[in-house]
Amino acid sequence: MFGQSGGPTSVINASACGVFEEAFKHDCITEVYGLRHGVRGLLDENFVDMSKEDRKQISLLKNTPSSALGSVRYKLADPDKDDTDYKRILEVFKKYNVRYFFYNGGNDSMDTCSKVSAYLAKAGYECHVMGVPKTIDNDLWGTDHCPGFASAAKYLATSCMEIHHDARVYDKGTVTVLEVMGRNAGWMTASTAIASYQGQGPDLIYVPEVAFDVKKFLADVKKIYKERGNVIVAVSEGIHDANGKYIAEYSQDLAKDSFNHAQLGGTASYLANLCKEELGVKTRAIEFSLLQRCAAHSASQIDVDEAYNAGAQAVKNAVEGKSGFMVAFERNTDNGYKCNIKLLPLADVANKEKKLPKEFLNKDGNFIEKPFLDYVMPLIQGEAKPPYENGLPVFAHLKLENAANK
Amino acid sequence: MFGQSGGPTSVINASACGVFEEAFKHDCITEVYGLRHGVRGLLDENFVDMSKEDRKQISLLKNTPSSALGSVRYKLADPDKDDTDYKRILEVFKKYNVRYFFYNGGNDSMDTCSKVSAYLAKAGYECHVMGVPKTIDNDLWGTDHCPGFASAAKYLATSCMEIHHDARVYDKGTVTVLEVMGRNAGWMTASTAIASYQGQGPDLIYVPEVAFDVKKFLADVKKIYKERGNVIVAVSEGIHDANGKYIAEYSQDLAKDSFNHAQLGGTASYLANLCKEELGVKTRAIEFSLLQRCAAHSASQIDVDEAYNAGAQAVKNAVEGKSGFMVAFERNTDNGYKCNIKLLPLADVANKEKKLPKEFLNKDGNFIEKPFLDYVMPLIQGEAKPPYENGLPVFAHLKLENAANK
Repeated sequence: MFGQSGGPTSVINASACGVFEEAFKHDCITEVYGLRHGVRGLLDENFVDMSKEDRKQISLLKNTPSSALGSVRYKLADPDKDDTDYKRILEVFKKYNVRYFFYNGGNDSMDTCSKVSAYLAKAGYECHVMGVPKTIDNDLWGTDHCPGFASAAKYLATSCMEIHHDARVYDKGTVTVLEVMGRNAGWMTASTAIASYQGQGPDLIYVPEVAFDVKKFLADVKKIYKERGNVIVAVSEGIHDANGKYIAEYSQDLAKDSFNHAQLGGTASYLANLCKEELGVKTRAIEFSLLQRCAAHSASQIDVDEAYNAGAQAVKNAVEGKSGFMVAFERNTDNGYKCNIKLLPLADVANKEKKLPKEFLNKDGNFIEKPFLDYVMPLIQGEAKPPYENGLPVFAHLKLENAANK
Repeated sequence: MFGQSGGPTSVINASACGVFEEAFKHDCITEVYGLRHGVRGLLDENFVDMSKEDRKQISLLKNTPSSALGSVRYKLADPDKDDTDYKRILEVFKKYNVRYFFYNGGNDSMDTCSKVSAYLAKAGYECHVMGVPKTIDNDLWGTDHCPGFASAAKYLATSCMEIHHDARVYDKGTVTVLEVMGRNAGWMTASTAIASYQGQGPDLIYVPEVAFDVKKFLADVKKIYKERGNVIVAVSEGIHDANGKYIAEYSQDLAKDSFNHAQLGGTASYLANLCKEELGVKTRAIEFSLLQRCAAHSASQIDVDEAYNAGAQAVKNAVEGKSGFMVAFERNTDNGYKCNIKLLPLADVANKEKKLPKEFLNKDGNFIEKPFLDYVMPLIQGEAKPPYENGLPVFAHLKLENAANK
């Protein structure tokens, strides 16, 4: 049984493809189920019989963005306080004789996965539980990087280069503020520096790892505008002041999602307006929004391959008897770039956030240093894209037929 | 002498490449100048000697987005009221013996081109003036379509398909409002229907050709949300109510640019907030912003080829003695799609806007009919992109050395 959870990426379906294609190879796995909307589909006994899907469509998942089975943001309770969901999961697992469970997501999903694994072990139900990593935010603990990040980084770098060409065409200067996802980690926003090191990217980069000071920001912009006549600024959606208050909160009350993360957005508009008012310059705000996490037409081939492999390795290791681990990446740079697989205990990964290390940040807190480039460049190599027909990408189209009730 | 004007596109540099490469072939053209920031560079005697540029870099222009020479929005006065600029242009032309003048832009730029052409003729100065079309808006009169439009359409269709996969992953529904450029014409927004006809695009499409009624919009969204559980809406930045008031004006005072066009934007946010308040649903607003006009990594090969050819044909025709025309496209569908070149008098093209014809709009004014697909699909064929090195696109890098003063 396999489920997808959390915010989608360009390559989360590549991991699904790896899980399914590997699972079909093993005799010990007699049926392959895909959960509709992650753990929600498990609780609702709402899942798909993957063997009924056309194998060609499953193969197309490699280059199909987003979560083909549907995703969910659902927080399981602490089992010591409320074990209702866990009892239900055990009931469904017993009913369908589920002995291998794979869950694909970020740190919240690894929390779900870890809790389920621990509960099943405690209940004495034999089931191999494996986490498959996924997040554009690249903030999972213990892994060199996360599937999904590299494609988002490649998209951001490419788009920043293109925007750099566009945003400076007129004889009058402009301040362009770009807003990048990534929650409380600056990995995504740092990736815009790839374009900067090509001489075609942001002049200033602000990440959540550095407390944001509005006055300092305005002084930075003013200085660059004076020197270069045009300014491109990249900011994380999660930048906040020294007191921890999000800049997005400066102009709006934030809705809360069910994980108690603030739903971020509007930071670029706020800062662009501020520049207009305080500096009297022409401004433009651009949010990359969903585009940065679903641009499968411009994915990294390395990322697609690694995402697929993460799924396949999860199955291989489970079949070999492993349980309670997340598949993780270890970088080997002896002969160029190579990505090895390692296993991390789920409990170690759950709910932790990996931030940008200090050596990637400049002293002034407004740009990214070269060592980040050494880290990120091997990950964005190779141009992956779906097959094209009649001028358009061909994405997987699953039937998503419900599995027969037992 | 060649200049670029107005808002950039993914392929305006392909036209520049066509102009330059063709110009280098003709003995009657002894020097090739590229204006910095269009007519502004002409008035300021600020232009580049293109023969000093590396021919490989000129060739890379084919797949480099935006206006490599810089653009401008500068409206020439009526020469009967104020001929200062015209006298200056004539002076510069005489000084550098400019006998061929090519101007690449949209309807405003064709106005500039037309006025210059008429003034030179009246002054008895022999100069062949040719307009090269360009605009993502596709709103130039008399031509089947405009270079730049098809690549923007292809980008929008692809991105809408990707967003369609992303925007419906959760078990709770969302209303996603996409905002598309195009000023007062709906060609760009209509292109999102390409994705809809693939079953992976907007459910509702609103263009400026139909008066927008907020109440009708909310009823439309409510109906689709009830039927499908998720709604994607595409709106033009230029939608306006029956009185001609832009929806963007509903929430903001609009700045005016120097052509007295309102600077549009913020429509998607306004409508998404409205849906949230009035229908109580989760919403997201996405502006494609500059991305839709500079995504050279995802351009249409047909568009790149046609843009190049438009530039080359302008030079060929000028060398053959033609003047006062804009190069235009005529569609031949006898044996599949073929694009022929025709010449239109500049004065006929200037300042006119071509809107979406009625047969492309549905009766309800909230979707696009199949005949538009027959029109647009041949234009988005072929995947053009720049060469890639080290995981990134390689764009032209011009030296832009000023031509020697005379």
